[in-house]
Amino acid sequence: MAISSQLHTTDGAAELILLSARSVWEPHLIAQVESLPQPLCTMAGYHFGRWDAEGTPVRGVPGKGVRPALVLAAAAACGGSVAQAAPAAAAVELLHNFTLVHDDVMDGDSTRRGRPTVWTVWGVADAILLGDALHAAAIRILVDEMAPGIATAVVAWLETAALELCRGQHEDCLFETVSAVGIEAYIRMAAGKTAALTGSACAVGALCAGADRGLVAQMDAFGRELGLAFQFVDDILGIWGDPEVTGKPVGNDLARRKLSLPVVAALESGTTAAVELEGLYRSQAPLTPADIARAMELIEVAGGRRVARQLAEQRIRAALTALPDLADTADLAVLTHAMTHRNR
Amino acid sequence: MAISSQLHTTDGAAELILLSARSVWEPHLIAQVESLPQPLCTMAGYHFGRWDAEGTPVRGVPGKGVRPALVLAAAAACGGSVAQAAPAAAAVELLHNFTLVHDDVMDGDSTRRGRPTVWTVWGVADAILLGDALHAAAIRILVDEMAPGIATAVVAWLETAALELCRGQHEDCLFETVSAVGIEAYIRMAAGKTAALTGSACAVGALCAGADRGLVAQMDAFGRELGLAFQFVDDILGIWGDPEVTGKPVGNDLARRKLSLPVVAALESGTTAAVELEGLYRSQAPLTPADIARAMELIEVAGGRRVARQLAEQRIRAALTALPDLADTADLAVLTHAMTHRNR
Repeated sequence: MAISSQLHTTDGAAELILLSARSVWEPHLIAQVESLPQPLCTMAGYHFGRWDAEGTPVRGVPGKGVRPALVLAAAAACGGSVAQAAPAAAAVELLHNFTLVHDDVMDGDSTRRGRPTVWTVWGVADAILLGDALHAAAIRILVDEMAPGIATAVVAWLETAALELCRGQHEDCLFETVSAVGIEAYIRMAAGKTAALTGSACAVGALCAGADRGLVAQMDAFGRELGLAFQFVDDILGIWGDPEVTGKPVGNDLARRKLSLPVVAALESGTTAAVELEGLYRSQAPLTPADIARAMELIEVAGGRRVARQLAEQRIRAALTALPDLADTADLAVLTHAMTHRNR
Repeated sequence: MAISSQLHTTDGAAELILLSARSVWEPHLIAQVESLPQPLCTMAGYHFGRWDAEGTPVRGVPGKGVRPALVLAAAAACGGSVAQAAPAAAAVELLHNFTLVHDDVMDGDSTRRGRPTVWTVWGVADAILLGDALHAAAIRILVDEMAPGIATAVVAWLETAALELCRGQHEDCLFETVSAVGIEAYIRMAAGKTAALTGSACAVGALCAGADRGLVAQMDAFGRELGLAFQFVDDILGIWGDPEVTGKPVGNDLARRKLSLPVVAALESGTTAAVELEGLYRSQAPLTPADIARAMELIEVAGGRRVARQLAEQRIRAALTALPDLADTADLAVLTHAMTHRNR
């Protein structure tokens, strides 16, 4: 029975789904991390919040773990065993984190989950190597721990997703060098950078449950819509998120002049606010806190926030529509709600 | 029958083995490259010497292709079909090239095979992404084109090798920051950076042929010894190689103050030449051509070249001793000779 059906609030249910999923997939991930050669093992454990840079255990903040929870919830929805899908869930989380470690290098991000990023601690070369090692570990866990027939199908799906992630990240980096991006180009980028992996997480869960091609494709479609909604909400939080809750500075994405969805939508609005916003984005000087506050206002006035929220709502509806008609999709629905109505 | 047995000279035989192997594995690699999303496809084709940075076909210089040739020769030696091992050979070449693209970023190398490296043309971010994509393509080819039972065994072997490569490259980068390295530490680095993949190439060939665990392990041991010999010879060429033949400047590794095997051995020699060499390596000023010429002399006088050649010969003998007693190992023996008696 779905965990969510035993609880009264959606937020509590989502927390419980994520936690109980973590108890299933995390041991597999930890075993992989601990089997890495040094110093990759220390770096990986640091990245996952298990210890500090010297290897002393800490109570770090790991990622939310939504992707592996999607794997397990999709497997359960398709009538599969959560335990059997556990290595695939761990693989998805490892793959996701390989891309995070590399993205931090490419984007020059110095903080993740409230701590210095791997490249700021160990340098660019070691961060590239850690990403490569997590990629290898993600794949190895599948061929080591799953039946060959399922393992190969899951590996094929995840490596194809990895290529889409690379394409999406390339486009995201490209956005840093241009002055304008259309909403369509933005969504294409997000489809690669984010939705490919949430789609694959759900598809892989279905594969682990032995689902047929049609059901796997439906799960993929669901996960992709969810991923887009998730990214759009992320972009809203990147501007208006509460620093106390997100752990990131106010207007974080604006300070970096990031062309995230609310900004893209605002710039396309044809309003006078758009013209002023464009001026701020085009200037070379670092944005002051006053500039950032002004940019937030301008995006709001130009309708950027509203459009981003509308597009997110559209994708949430599309995700729930795409959700296959199965007995036990309640956990997937709860995760959908939690991933798209969050404050961090 | 082994190709080599039909020819009279070892050099000619090696060329023919490499060429005929290429005709088998390269189509698989090209198909993967062409299936990559843009701009990764253009970047990959550029890296493999198929076209220039704009995508215009050129007659580039691809790598020598020794690793995929080892896969095929090992498969044939174990009584397997070369055609069946072809995707694995292409996978090994893709994996090798993923590490080359990333290594060029980490090492700051601006030239490879006589052309600007990917990161110098497209930047660091895209080079990281291309490496990631080649890694994904290497694995995908295996699960797409081989039977699940063999594919999973090959994937497991190659991802374990990938982790060793990461460890070796980390140590190699570390050597850039220290003033002295022992021969033992140097060999440990080379065992990861080079020998893990040549060993895996041979082991994977055996796996494709359906060889038992014992034979696979023997092939791995052979390939590892060969890889060490190959690296030691590479280090000798990195100092004394003919620029006309290698395509690299005279004393290339010395200009970068690289702690390669001849340098490591010379510095450990306890001679007065070692003391002078250490002074050159410790100084902060860029080395002049006269400094480089002097360093070459000092390494020679301190016995660094001789020791490196001796260690290479030891490993060649160890490789040939490790070579399993099979009917058709002639091609492996020819490749061993060619890889360790070369001028580029």
